[in-house]
Amino acid sequence: MEMPIIPLIMCGGAGTRLWPASREVRPKQFLPLFGTRSTFQDTLRRVSGGLFDRPIVITNASYRFMVLEQLAEIGIEADVLLEPMRRDSGPAIAAGAAFAQNRDNDAIVLALAADHVVPNDAAFVAACRQGLVAAGEGRIVTFGVKPERPATEYGYINPGEAVAGEVRAVAKFVEKPDAMKAADYVNSGYLWNSGNFMFPAALLLDEYRKVDAASVEAVSNAVANAGRDLGFVTLEPKAFASANAISIDYAVMEKTSRAAVVPVSCGWSDVGSWRAVWELSEKDAQGNAAHGTAVFEDSRNCNVTTDQALVALEGVDDLVVVATVDAVLVSRQKDANGLKRLVTKLKTVAPKVTEEHLKVHRPWGSYQSIDNGVRHQVKRIVVKPGGRLSLQKHHHRAEHWIVVRGAARVTVNETVKTVHENESIYIPMGAVHRMENPGKIMLELIEVQTGSYLGEDDIIRIEDDYLRS
Amino acid sequence: MEMPIIPLIMCGGAGTRLWPASREVRPKQFLPLFGTRSTFQDTLRRVSGGLFDRPIVITNASYRFMVLEQLAEIGIEADVLLEPMRRDSGPAIAAGAAFAQNRDNDAIVLALAADHVVPNDAAFVAACRQGLVAAGEGRIVTFGVKPERPATEYGYINPGEAVAGEVRAVAKFVEKPDAMKAADYVNSGYLWNSGNFMFPAALLLDEYRKVDAASVEAVSNAVANAGRDLGFVTLEPKAFASANAISIDYAVMEKTSRAAVVPVSCGWSDVGSWRAVWELSEKDAQGNAAHGTAVFEDSRNCNVTTDQALVALEGVDDLVVVATVDAVLVSRQKDANGLKRLVTKLKTVAPKVTEEHLKVHRPWGSYQSIDNGVRHQVKRIVVKPGGRLSLQKHHHRAEHWIVVRGAARVTVNETVKTVHENESIYIPMGAVHRMENPGKIMLELIEVQTGSYLGEDDIIRIEDDYLRS
Repeated sequence: MEMPIIPLIMCGGAGTRLWPASREVRPKQFLPLFGTRSTFQDTLRRVSGGLFDRPIVITNASYRFMVLEQLAEIGIEADVLLEPMRRDSGPAIAAGAAFAQNRDNDAIVLALAADHVVPNDAAFVAACRQGLVAAGEGRIVTFGVKPERPATEYGYINPGEAVAGEVRAVAKFVEKPDAMKAADYVNSGYLWNSGNFMFPAALLLDEYRKVDAASVEAVSNAVANAGRDLGFVTLEPKAFASANAISIDYAVMEKTSRAAVVPVSCGWSDVGSWRAVWELSEKDAQGNAAHGTAVFEDSRNCNVTTDQALVALEGVDDLVVVATVDAVLVSRQKDANGLKRLVTKLKTVAPKVTEEHLKVHRPWGSYQSIDNGVRHQVKRIVVKPGGRLSLQKHHHRAEHWIVVRGAARVTVNETVKTVHENESIYIPMGAVHRMENPGKIMLELIEVQTGSYLGEDDIIRIEDDYLRS
Repeated sequence: MEMPIIPLIMCGGAGTRLWPASREVRPKQFLPLFGTRSTFQDTLRRVSGGLFDRPIVITNASYRFMVLEQLAEIGIEADVLLEPMRRDSGPAIAAGAAFAQNRDNDAIVLALAADHVVPNDAAFVAACRQGLVAAGEGRIVTFGVKPERPATEYGYINPGEAVAGEVRAVAKFVEKPDAMKAADYVNSGYLWNSGNFMFPAALLLDEYRKVDAASVEAVSNAVANAGRDLGFVTLEPKAFASANAISIDYAVMEKTSRAAVVPVSCGWSDVGSWRAVWELSEKDAQGNAAHGTAVFEDSRNCNVTTDQALVALEGVDDLVVVATVDAVLVSRQKDANGLKRLVTKLKTVAPKVTEEHLKVHRPWGSYQSIDNGVRHQVKRIVVKPGGRLSLQKHHHRAEHWIVVRGAARVTVNETVKTVHENESIYIPMGAVHRMENPGKIMLELIEVQTGSYLGEDDIIRIEDDYLRS
């Protein structure tokens, strides 16, 4: 019987290359960019069952409840490792490898980015089978995508001698090229470096130790002394903090003599720009793509993504238009650096639209502000079955709750009461209160706050199921 | 003493050249395109006091409460004539002239479009003084704007022999020219035809009668038999309907021998396109204009208008971007006909965004839908002091009202109750109810509707102050 592969899904990154859809609090890997599932969810489903063991997910602590929610949506269970701070991909993969070794000392790990698109799952899994043989023979195998065009946004791999089946040794990793070099690379049979890897956990840690033994020691200690809260594996912060921030490429891949590459044709993309989203999208005869409601008049090769508003384009070509409730982007996308400069500017003049979404995810569900006045705010709140907000009070606001779906169990000071659909309850200023969903369906309610100060920081938490302060 | 001029403000038109800001229910003349006042309000203020008598406003019946609201905002009183249907500018001006004659048989009328921008009010008033002399001598005086460029979007006037002061006879009206002809016209001293006129009421009607006596008779009857409801003058529908739809240019100006033109330099624009809005706007060093929050990166000569969302432009030139809550326009505006084609397309595929705004104006105030679910809707409702909604009931929905500002007097079946800020009241399904604002400040409340059907047509009106069915 084949050795099972342990998937290690890395989803702790926060990019703004897909702003305004992607933001600090909910980055690209958690967004349903194509259809209804996120790339994080698609990645998990790609390596579910068959060859693959229970996955390990490693993420930033701030994304922990989003990860749980997205796992639950697709019915996949995983061990979720929390990084207390970002240390780049080297320590993340080392932590995953060390954790996998606890499960099986001879574990073979498949480290995958959570924000890539792979249209051809079968081709990818076939490549995993090839890679598994080479990994079993002591190789750190990277997935090399057969180029579809002379891309300048990816690094390349020059494949060397044959290793096992189609797997080749890595002769050389090369950086992102200019257009001329890229054409040379493609003609010479180079492969795109996808940044996904398969390796025996023990081998990866050994090779990493040769370069930075102290960081491997630190990461191993962070795993050995990890806490367990609410089912999460919380890496020990002091130890993890002392590991050097470095990418797995610099820490291991570009230095090890064990690097190998398995060629794969799976339609892969790292979705690193809005242009890439357009390339991956279905388009009309004029080359226009629409995610959401869009109308095109005399326009070509445009890409519209909209949450809610209808977007109408007239007389324009090669534009990306992204409309969210609080921010609209219109960009030529002639080079991806333009958006980077724009977001840098926004971080100074309007930081909120780069960091937060209007819809805020919480461990118990979510809320969204739908109206703001001088002395009032209206929120739509959704509480999952079994979800319970903290026991809390506010100094400066009273709240009216109207249940529009499901039922709420509400505590106000000494009394506990069930509020049903089409019923309301009033929380006076200063009252100690709590809301929970005791039912089997989502609870939806409208909250109307009134008062002189309505900031999120006027919450005094007295008790919290989710250990938030 | 000078004879006072009676301003006649024509504000019944509905254009979509400024979509999505301008829509059928609230067209351009009622929008605060520049600053806080609408062009309708600016037009009224321009001809207020001094030379000018109490204004007459002629509008479509569907805009009557918007007209009242905007008059009240600027503290100007007017006679408001309601057209029961659109019949173009000929019958509208004839109706205004006939109504003015009731006030004074020798009335001099100044007919003004409500959707033009005139930066230099003083120059315009000075031209009125000049025009008044010529009108007193039996002329129908049109305002000819000295061209600032060889515009192709305006008709031109070739001025003839001197009449009085700077006023000249009209040698010829000419249609919108192509670019070459426009340059010729400008070089030959032609003037832009602004579509604003001054005339003795009796003379205009006489000249109109020579062309279409039946229509003048019909309009005169519509004025003579007008109804008076809630302070409006409602033109008698059957008579008014029988007048031919025709512009004042075709009905009178291009046929009369009495046409004269007063040259004026007042920075005039008919704001007939988003490009015109850009031309009239303040711009940064890169030529970008922003109405609302906009951020520009590597972009030039763009024009952003946004209600709420931040709009960020990157790497684009010469674009107009207009973001409303429910529709976003991105257009090259290389020719204004492009937007016309787009709106025509939208009328088929998404008519709602061409007709309605999310904020709906009512005689008692306004409401806006702020959240829609399967079985609930949330509205923000504003009721003016003294405003009172109809006595009504709903078959399919219950309502929760939470007052967030001011006080509401609420009738529910047999009981009447005052609901203060931070209080709420529940209207059960089927209950006969009414809301009014008995106070001196605006009443603001949040309405949460729950039920299986939430359409606006589930209102059974039992009694209505504003005579709506």
